[in-house]
Amino acid sequence: MKIAILGSGMVGHALGTKLVEIGHQVLMGSRTARSEAGQEWLRSVKAQAQIGTFADAAAFGEIILDCTNGANSLAALRQGGAANLADKILIQISNPLDFSQGMPPSLTVCNTDSLGEQIQREFPQARVVKALNTVNCAVMVQPSLVPGDHDLIICGNDATAKREVVGLLGEWFGWKEQSVIDLGDITSSRATEMYLALWVRLWGVLGTPHFNIKVTRSRN
Amino acid sequence: MKIAILGSGMVGHALGTKLVEIGHQVLMGSRTARSEAGQEWLRSVKAQAQIGTFADAAAFGEIILDCTNGANSLAALRQGGAANLADKILIQISNPLDFSQGMPPSLTVCNTDSLGEQIQREFPQARVVKALNTVNCAVMVQPSLVPGDHDLIICGNDATAKREVVGLLGEWFGWKEQSVIDLGDITSSRATEMYLALWVRLWGVLGTPHFNIKVTRSRN
Repeated sequence: MKIAILGSGMVGHALGTKLVEIGHQVLMGSRTARSEAGQEWLRSVKAQAQIGTFADAAAFGEIILDCTNGANSLAALRQGGAANLADKILIQISNPLDFSQGMPPSLTVCNTDSLGEQIQREFPQARVVKALNTVNCAVMVQPSLVPGDHDLIICGNDATAKREVVGLLGEWFGWKEQSVIDLGDITSSRATEMYLALWVRLWGVLGTPHFNIKVTRSRN
Repeated sequence: MKIAILGSGMVGHALGTKLVEIGHQVLMGSRTARSEAGQEWLRSVKAQAQIGTFADAAAFGEIILDCTNGANSLAALRQGGAANLADKILIQISNPLDFSQGMPPSLTVCNTDSLGEQIQREFPQARVVKALNTVNCAVMVQPSLVPGDHDLIICGNDATAKREVVGLLGEWFGWKEQSVIDLGDITSSRATEMYLALWVRLWGVLGTPHFNIKVTRSRN
């Protein structure tokens, strides 16, 4: 499968590497075609992939993984090009974290709007599925890093796209279908992005970013 | 123990009833001394408690449980009176939910401030511990309603107060000490209040408010 990774940071690196390992064709896009981080990643996967601009990646991918910094996601997707995103599944992973006031970060948008919604509004033809943003990138690609059952919360307007994404997350990374909670339409991005306020503080308390939550309900 | 319950809604009702059942002296405070909801609750506990104003309750209690609506919490605590709150543990349960735009609610304050912080700032002598606000009131008083291990996340500036609250939540309701996560100082109220965005949507998806989360970390 031809997969576009937008962003050459930690998340793009982790997901891109895993996808190359399991035999997919990956093009990692950055602001510039030959970014330092992109070239470093390319070496790390022994050149078994490609790098290029956001537009190169978006044109290449049958599916798009948004691994950009949340503060830059909209700009990156604009460079990717609306036409290149049209009718494609866009797994929207980045969170709108604002580190400008130090740690822990706040959010650049929240409460009555979210990055997931902003992206779906600006690119109405993209099939946006917010997913994976509630776990660290090592857990994204290897959920078994966290013992026992734990959940991945996704949302999006396109039910078919969500079903496909659940299948892909299982196939690519080993996320069990029964561990995926579909929270509803893309407005639920508010919920999974606002959860980051808790996530960053749990990271501090637990001393590792390799954790996740399991939701349990009463039996009756 | 003399316990003040501020607020005669669902949460005050549930906590007040449980505390009366296990033999504590409870005074439930409302805006008016003889509120309808207060009288109804008093009948439901066969008059084995007292009702009064917020000031009556705050003066009476050796410990204060803030079960008000988040939108009214500051006003209620002002009526309670700063002098009545001084040096007392204030378990701050309410969330700043804004239902004015319908369901699901947004928050009246979030991201770079929180209700817990607003209250601690306005009442610096109160020993504010944010707790119980991440679960439904039925789960607050009976954590075993949710099967298996699950966690309660608390925060506050006063470490001694937090330790006392952990002990009381165990004694009163059966919360296990190892299930309580201390997230840090009162600024972490942002995290547990913003989690409500997820909580209200999980309620919708799960079809019951009787659920909770368990945080699991990697072994290494």
